[in-house]
Amino acid sequence: MLPQNRWFIEYFGSTEAHMHGIKEYLLSKQTQFQRVDLVETFGYGCCLFLDGKIQSSEKDEFIYHEALVHPPLLLIPKPRKVMIIGGAEGATLREVLKHKTIEKAVMVDIDEELVNFCKKFLPEWAKSSFDDPRSEVIYTDARKYLEETEESFDSIIIDLTEPMAGSPAVKLYTKEFYQIVYQHLTPQGTISLQAGTTRPGDTTLLMMIAKTIETSFPIVRIYEVIIPSFDLPWGMILGSKANDPKNLFCQEIDRLLKEREIQDLLYYDGETHQAIFSLPKFLREAQKKPSRLIEDAHPLTIN
Amino acid sequence: MLPQNRWFIEYFGSTEAHMHGIKEYLLSKQTQFQRVDLVETFGYGCCLFLDGKIQSSEKDEFIYHEALVHPPLLLIPKPRKVMIIGGAEGATLREVLKHKTIEKAVMVDIDEELVNFCKKFLPEWAKSSFDDPRSEVIYTDARKYLEETEESFDSIIIDLTEPMAGSPAVKLYTKEFYQIVYQHLTPQGTISLQAGTTRPGDTTLLMMIAKTIETSFPIVRIYEVIIPSFDLPWGMILGSKANDPKNLFCQEIDRLLKEREIQDLLYYDGETHQAIFSLPKFLREAQKKPSRLIEDAHPLTIN
Amino acid sequence: MLPQNRWFIEYFGSTEAHMHGIKEYLLSKQTQFQRVDLVETFGYGCCLFLDGKIQSSEKDEFIYHEALVHPPLLLIPKPRKVMIIGGAEGATLREVLKHKTIEKAVMVDIDEELVNFCKKFLPEWAKSSFDDPRSEVIYTDARKYLEETEESFDSIIIDLTEPMAGSPAVKLYTKEFYQIVYQHLTPQGTISLQAGTTRPGDTTLLMMIAKTIETSFPIVRIYEVIIPSFDLPWGMILGSKANDPKNLFCQEIDRLLKEREIQDLLYYDGETHQAIFSLPKFLREAQKKPSRLIEDAHPLTIN
Amino acid sequence: MLPQNRWFIEYFGSTEAHMHGIKEYLLSKQTQFQRVDLVETFGYGCCLFLDGKIQSSEKDEFIYHEALVHPPLLLIPKPRKVMIIGGAEGATLREVLKHKTIEKAVMVDIDEELVNFCKKFLPEWAKSSFDDPRSEVIYTDARKYLEETEESFDSIIIDLTEPMAGSPAVKLYTKEFYQIVYQHLTPQGTISLQAGTTRPGDTTLLMMIAKTIETSFPIVRIYEVIIPSFDLPWGMILGSKANDPKNLFCQEIDRLLKEREIQDLLYYDGETHQAIFSLPKFLREAQKKPSRLIEDAHPLTIN
Repeated sequence: MLPQNRWFIEYFGSTEAHMHGIKEYLLSKQTQFQRVDLVETFGYGCCLFLDGKIQSSEKDEFIYHEALVHPPLLLIPKPRKVMIIGGAEGATLREVLKHKTIEKAVMVDIDEELVNFCKKFLPEWAKSSFDDPRSEVIYTDARKYLEETEESFDSIIIDLTEPMAGSPAVKLYTKEFYQIVYQHLTPQGTISLQAGTTRPGDTTLLMMIAKTIETSFPIVRIYEVIIPSFDLPWGMILGSKANDPKNLFCQEIDRLLKEREIQDLLYYDGETHQAIFSLPKFLREAQKKPSRLIEDAHPLTIN
Repeated sequence: MLPQNRWFIEYFGSTEAHMHGIKEYLLSKQTQFQRVDLVETFGYGCCLFLDGKIQSSEKDEFIYHEALVHPPLLLIPKPRKVMIIGGAEGATLREVLKHKTIEKAVMVDIDEELVNFCKKFLPEWAKSSFDDPRSEVIYTDARKYLEETEESFDSIIIDLTEPMAGSPAVKLYTKEFYQIVYQHLTPQGTISLQAGTTRPGDTTLLMMIAKTIETSFPIVRIYEVIIPSFDLPWGMILGSKANDPKNLFCQEIDRLLKEREIQDLLYYDGETHQAIFSLPKFLREAQKKPSRLIEDAHPLTIN
Repeated sequence: MLPQNRWFIEYFGSTEAHMHGIKEYLLSKQTQFQRVDLVETFGYGCCLFLDGKIQSSEKDEFIYHEALVHPPLLLIPKPRKVMIIGGAEGATLREVLKHKTIEKAVMVDIDEELVNFCKKFLPEWAKSSFDDPRSEVIYTDARKYLEETEESFDSIIIDLTEPMAGSPAVKLYTKEFYQIVYQHLTPQGTISLQAGTTRPGDTTLLMMIAKTIETSFPIVRIYEVIIPSFDLPWGMILGSKANDPKNLFCQEIDRLLKEREIQDLLYYDGETHQAIFSLPKFLREAQKKPSRLIEDAHPLTIN
Repeated sequence: MLPQNRWFIEYFGSTEAHMHGIKEYLLSKQTQFQRVDLVETFGYGCCLFLDGKIQSSEKDEFIYHEALVHPPLLLIPKPRKVMIIGGAEGATLREVLKHKTIEKAVMVDIDEELVNFCKKFLPEWAKSSFDDPRSEVIYTDARKYLEETEESFDSIIIDLTEPMAGSPAVKLYTKEFYQIVYQHLTPQGTISLQAGTTRPGDTTLLMMIAKTIETSFPIVRIYEVIIPSFDLPWGMILGSKANDPKNLFCQEIDRLLKEREIQDLLYYDGETHQAIFSLPKFLREAQKKPSRLIEDAHPLTIN
């Protein structure tokens, strides 16, 4: 039996690629900001690709979104207001709203068309989150929004694509941007974001972002999350004004999840927290090396 | 710029595949037992493929081999004799010999031709291990060897391909085989092996192997290791007669590594141990479900 | 710049394949009879694939359909009634109707759903042919239709997929079938069909079909047509009761086309006729070798 | 059964590609002038690729080389001296030497390393041609050679890669170059060359080259040759000072081949000649359109 005829090939540079056999094509559109492909694959169910790069898959989006949201929110005793930057699928919003302390979740995504595609084709990802009275969705540039608002948030969850050349995400990875973010956080405020692969030898991007965040935040922790559809192991970063996620222990996390009545997680709990914040030795060594800072005048872009 | 012309495509079933751009072809041969491809890729350096499946890569073989070897050896107070089943690259042997307590390491691989290819093309992997006076390499069927020998080992490291249909590995995954292994271990004896992906929804193989090992070993722990060249997160299993790796804490591991004068590890240490033995929630849930046993009369084979 | 992410890969056995970059996915459906993929490619415009094999493309369907239709119709002084077997796209019908002598064109295709897809997605191929009062479309098995009808035709154009294992096309390639066809032709009647690649060394299929047709028809001519989207050069066969296409010369063809008021051909005319019926030497040599016959009891199937 | 793991992918722009399953890797080297890949494929036997583009394959090189050589040589009553530009595989030389009138064949190829690879890995292609006392091989730039020599040739066979950007072939496709070539031909002299695809809609390159040759040669004929490994139908061009290949008829060609004692051709003879010089209608139409000229100051390069 020959393999599938229909493939979506995600290229990692010009020398590595992953081929996904396609079950059904849902959508392929160029929005004002990016190319959107919604594809049902055999291996990962529905997948969202932006500019050819996988963003999340039906099979393992729970790993990405739980890991992105719960660590920064559990570090705060009683998170009330959360901002989400990006997060078009609505799944980050879904996880945020699981914390019953949340009173307001503001999601700022630049690409309204993309959000509407996700609502239509991936309704299971946001579930009812977009209709939750605590949710507010604003379609604008997140940096501009922050520069103009006087709101403060307990946590700002940054759920962006990588800073591909020409993308509006580029200026959301700079020292200046993280300073603006810092200024809009409450005293125990936290941030989290995805920040590139942790593959040995290829962590330059991750380390640059971490160092850049350290110019604003006193506590910065890399954690490693395995989202199989990403093909590569992935780094996330948590920045915090006051509390260290390495001091949040198993039992405390399980107690907090219970207290906030979060029962339906599939990936994250105390033991998972311990696993993901314990980095393999080579990553800890890589962290010790100097990295350049990302600045508005010297931004970071990838191809 | 167009991508590479030369690719090695590893298929995962008929609906997913990973493409590796080829820098140089080193070898492609059918031995008596399997197809061997040695390829220098752009992304992962030299790679060994058996029957089209990646076994290890220059870039991250250290992760695989350190994770396979050190947990079972550190569980034993003073490991003297170790058997390796498979392990053609010599890198498992290399890691075993790092423990200065080791007096004898017997490697049993069925495929002499493959071992010779690895010696020739991947000399950096075994380093000088094959010449170490403590090493003995025997080219025969490992099950036959164990059935006939009266030797006992402190640890038996099983470094095999997956049980592909028709492969001699098939009968090295059964209940009966693990019983034979058990009988050749000293009272605190341990085993370890790689046992398939931990991707959510696809852990049937891993769970069947773990359950099967439980019929012989009182302590069986799955641990999760990320070897990027494998494309998928991977499960390893540690079986133990007496000691539980979950009770081996960070500081104790770092102390033991120091005591045994193991200084050059890149991946494994106390914190890494803690990370890999702390499983994500969905894997712990999957472990609770019933699995069938693998028996000589009902073996497991994959395509 | 990296290449496309979205590809349709047509496999030729397990060792050759052609990759088409996809611009837009139009349809992918399993009908009762076959898998239908309608894809807009960058290289060939809209393409129809059945069971993963290309049938025709926007860019070069004119070559296929003009070559299939005009030689058999020009061999007959005044063709009135033509039957088309298969031909779902409607383009064979379109070419047939260009002959102003035609009074009736009966198209028999087993797959109504496929014909409807073609009408919807490839309207430019049939143009107004399906609405032409001379056209009749019957959805049934062509062999059954011929066995039951008492109609005679001046030409029967066989526009089928290759006889893939399990396909209803299999019994439309046998000696017995061609006998039935023969019996439904008028005294100067002709047939034409596509019959596999002419690639050197790979003409077994083509030669078997030609030999099988020779059991019914006194005049059988292979002609070679280059349809670039087929990736390989292709053989067509013309069977004739009375007239030999090798005796139809340039000027006569051009005169006949004029007489029948056929002005809009892009591919076929007298000079093209001469080119396609003049075979390269190796094909003429291959024709001299013995071939087995295809019979109902020993049909031909390909994978 | 899954397909091959090892592929050579030839890209045609960024939206079409052909995948060749690899049986054995023979060589992959960057010479001073180009990337050379010698690969044994399952579908086409040994193949030579230069800069990722197929040049010739074991299975069908006879088509390419017979078509390139015999038409220009048969147009000349008694060809004595022939120059070959490029032609590293030695197969063009092989075909030239079949004409028993030949007294001297000078092959000028810029890439000595490539010629040596071909001698070593493709010995069946040149057969004994390089050792023939009538052969002379000169490793230099062909244009420079012609500018400096006072020799005249009866035919100059141009067997080059396409004018890829940066390639030394670029200045061997210009008006000025063809003038130099013209000046080195005897009064009935001829040239031939391959000149890009004849795919409908994609013949700009072919037509530009033909128009450029017309600035020097009174008779210029495009002919179409199907070399399946090229994936696309291909155009060759014959330029002639005095005789027109369209006036060379079947029987005359067969008589000449006999007279010159050329008996072992597999592809070319009178009927093949008639086929390849009879172009499909769309190509004849495309020839009527204006094309720009290729000049040293405005060369042609492809990607």
